[in-house]
Amino acid sequence: MRENRIRIGVVAPGSRIEPLLAERVGDVARALYGERAPELVFHPQCFLASGHFAGDDAARAEAFLDVANDADFDALWFARGGYGSGRIAARVLPELDDAAARKTYLGYSDTGALLAGMYTRGFSNLAHGPMPADLTREGGHEAIKRALSYLVDRAAATLEATISGTSPTIAFNITILSHLIGTPLQPDLAGHILMLEEVSEYMYRIDRSLLHITSNPGIRKVAGIKLGRCSAIPPNDPDFGQTEEEVMKHWCAASGIAYLGRADIGHDIGNKIVPFGHFRPQ
Amino acid sequence: MRENRIRIGVVAPGSRIEPLLAERVGDVARALYGERAPELVFHPQCFLASGHFAGDDAARAEAFLDVANDADFDALWFARGGYGSGRIAARVLPELDDAAARKTYLGYSDTGALLAGMYTRGFSNLAHGPMPADLTREGGHEAIKRALSYLVDRAAATLEATISGTSPTIAFNITILSHLIGTPLQPDLAGHILMLEEVSEYMYRIDRSLLHITSNPGIRKVAGIKLGRCSAIPPNDPDFGQTEEEVMKHWCAASGIAYLGRADIGHDIGNKIVPFGHFRPQ
Repeated sequence: MRENRIRIGVVAPGSRIEPLLAERVGDVARALYGERAPELVFHPQCFLASGHFAGDDAARAEAFLDVANDADFDALWFARGGYGSGRIAARVLPELDDAAARKTYLGYSDTGALLAGMYTRGFSNLAHGPMPADLTREGGHEAIKRALSYLVDRAAATLEATISGTSPTIAFNITILSHLIGTPLQPDLAGHILMLEEVSEYMYRIDRSLLHITSNPGIRKVAGIKLGRCSAIPPNDPDFGQTEEEVMKHWCAASGIAYLGRADIGHDIGNKIVPFGHFRPQ
Repeated sequence: MRENRIRIGVVAPGSRIEPLLAERVGDVARALYGERAPELVFHPQCFLASGHFAGDDAARAEAFLDVANDADFDALWFARGGYGSGRIAARVLPELDDAAARKTYLGYSDTGALLAGMYTRGFSNLAHGPMPADLTREGGHEAIKRALSYLVDRAAATLEATISGTSPTIAFNITILSHLIGTPLQPDLAGHILMLEEVSEYMYRIDRSLLHITSNPGIRKVAGIKLGRCSAIPPNDPDFGQTEEEVMKHWCAASGIAYLGRADIGHDIGNKIVPFGHFRPQ
């Protein structure tokens, strides 16, 4: 840490963000922290466009490695989800060095593919939590404030409230975890409390993904599952007839996994921080 | 076979169909075959409704077993896809008996979850091809005619044209196969030509599912992949920038799987028959 200010590098392995958003996030950080404000460095790659993505695979991979392998950055903050992390995972993971392993990483949604891959490689400072793009939500400064409080001060108040320190924890978007099952990116979650959340998926798809996840022998070794918020679920035709919690309980019972109740995470401004593994205070 | 007529039992492990559709499929069979027309028995379960499904899990599982384990049926024809096969797979597969193993099964889309599970258990008369619900498509009687020609006469003309008999084949909907990866339903596809098709999925989701499928070590043992039709792809925002064949070629190259060109299958009336394993003439 330089002069009591941390340096945070921001990259976008999935969808792009607007330069104005980067400026606004910097404004929030300065308003909150004044002279202690972290130095936020948005990699120019965040603003590239290549079809669906914030630049092509090569550009996104290079930007991720630029920040991850640079010892002058204390943290890598994912700018936004969307889709694209998984596309570059096989390319970037073997290139990560010691500086990358010491760094803090924060993101959720699509970025779960890279977080999972780093977790399988033993990285110990990975967390599921808000990203710069959350500032575009109504009241989004609360999410940014929480993320910065975690990145700057590792404040325990930012954590999902049920995190006790006894069991390791991990959190994923349901669809993203489903797409990691049976791949080299699927982490060993034995003994973990697994928290899951979803957004903008039909109930029949949530059900199908939870069937998939809970059918995997590795996943069945978790200590239990906690269900985060499933928001913006489109109307099912015909009505699905079961809520997301009924579905989650059903698949936990069918698979012999303990259902541990709700988790305070989701695609919203209330999204609390969930460390991958154990919480490590500064 | 009784009096030169085969008996086909129809069940709906996913979404329901209307009784009128069952009558129309029977009409088509009688028009095509006259006195040789197969006896089509639509299980009453096909017409049940329970939320998203054609009856609850117990009803759908029981109907499937009623037909599968009844030696008086020569074939089990899946009525329709939708979603629901995977939900009952763990319940029904252990209950299948010798009569079930001798039977012919035909379906595609969601029914791939049950077909895959039966293939892992060594069933040898499974095929990917049209279902009764295809009659609702424009020109749908062509699909019904093809399915019946396969079920009644095992006509080689119904097969996907590139099926040579040298390599075993198999076909799946992309999203359905993605949800089988890493579960006990994932079949051993070593040496198989794997044909894949999709409908009504965004390009970014097709890309994500193909990344998932081709990242699995078991899938990488296939002899190669052939891409069927990907239809009714909703507009991507922003434009994805790559076609489904470009994406398929990309993931084949990245995973070391041979890309073998297009397959004549899809969610349409042109959907040709793909036997699971080797084609067995009558």
